[in-house]
Amino acid sequence: MIVRFFFDFISPYAYLAWQKIHAVVEPEGGRVQPVPVLFAALLDAHGTLGPAEVPAKRRYLIKDVSRRAAMEGVAIDAPFAHPFNPLLMLRVASLPAAAQQRRRLIDGLFRATWAERRDVTDPAVVGALAAEAGLPEALKEAQAPDAKARLRQQTEQAIALGVFGVPTAELGGELFWGTDSLILLERHLTGQDKVPKDLAQRWESLPRQAERRK
Amino acid sequence: MIVRFFFDFISPYAYLAWQKIHAVVEPEGGRVQPVPVLFAALLDAHGTLGPAEVPAKRRYLIKDVSRRAAMEGVAIDAPFAHPFNPLLMLRVASLPAAAQQRRRLIDGLFRATWAERRDVTDPAVVGALAAEAGLPEALKEAQAPDAKARLRQQTEQAIALGVFGVPTAELGGELFWGTDSLILLERHLTGQDKVPKDLAQRWESLPRQAERRK
Repeated sequence: MIVRFFFDFISPYAYLAWQKIHAVVEPEGGRVQPVPVLFAALLDAHGTLGPAEVPAKRRYLIKDVSRRAAMEGVAIDAPFAHPFNPLLMLRVASLPAAAQQRRRLIDGLFRATWAERRDVTDPAVVGALAAEAGLPEALKEAQAPDAKARLRQQTEQAIALGVFGVPTAELGGELFWGTDSLILLERHLTGQDKVPKDLAQRWESLPRQAERRK
Repeated sequence: MIVRFFFDFISPYAYLAWQKIHAVVEPEGGRVQPVPVLFAALLDAHGTLGPAEVPAKRRYLIKDVSRRAAMEGVAIDAPFAHPFNPLLMLRVASLPAAAQQRRRLIDGLFRATWAERRDVTDPAVVGALAAEAGLPEALKEAQAPDAKARLRQQTEQAIALGVFGVPTAELGGELFWGTDSLILLERHLTGQDKVPKDLAQRWESLPRQAERRK
């Protein structure tokens, strides 16, 4: 049983969820398959704004992330810049690699971004972290056209599945968005997720009685 | 100590949070002050889309709300329509009333919307629920200009505080958005909320290194 974990390094919530998801999935006999995606492309596809693009949400997000990190006991710091361009990290993290190497690489990149305040758009920083994870050729490989195409495909696949934000965990088409949904994923994995099918169907077919004027 | 609870009946998350917030605030010696606001006006003010306005989010929301209601043991059903016009309910719930009456009224309106599938835009339905809460004149009073102005003022006050979504709990300018943040409110009330001030400051003053093209 494979739980896909769609994420972008740009998201501190993805960083928080990454610290926990293996402990949710592996005890149930599952495996986490991390899938880097470009969050900005999800926003474009759904016509939405990211939280950092709405000033009141950005101010809120900073406190919320700090509080959740403190609650979870996860080290966090302000990043070196925000937003920043995550493409190089996303492409490196998408290269073919053994599961343990990829996990170590993603660990290192997340920590560099969200706990160590490093400039993770700097190829030297990303290349060094890849080498530490046992992938010394990663920086070169990430420049190849197929590496760029792979990230695009992953992002398009996420959009096709209905993923609109990161982090999102997915199993059998069921989506679990945000760090707060790991508890729902856990309930799903342990058979406690009993949403009546007809409830969702009834709800989807509701009449719309009021729309905002645009 | 008064915790303001900004909400709109349109939001099933506000319904879920309403079932829990008194149990979070009252044991700490606090009191919940419910403040109805027009969610659509918050969206307008911040230039954002509501979750029901983004198709992928709307599909996700239905399942997410159902799962969270099941986890919390809260009865929920699809509403009679969605979106619907919540103005009458919001104005009635904003009328001057004793705290216990207002609480009973809000209980009844939320239940009618999210558990009983009643047409809560129907003045007869809203009037009957107000009468059951001991406010037999509410329907008439809600049509008065000052009742309309009160809701507008409450909404403007929320926007000025930085509220961008519902439900939001507020204490001393600190915001707690969403049902998932009640645990953070609880930690705040019990003195476990130790976000380093300089972290938020450092984060707010970060350089922006990449922006999406609009």
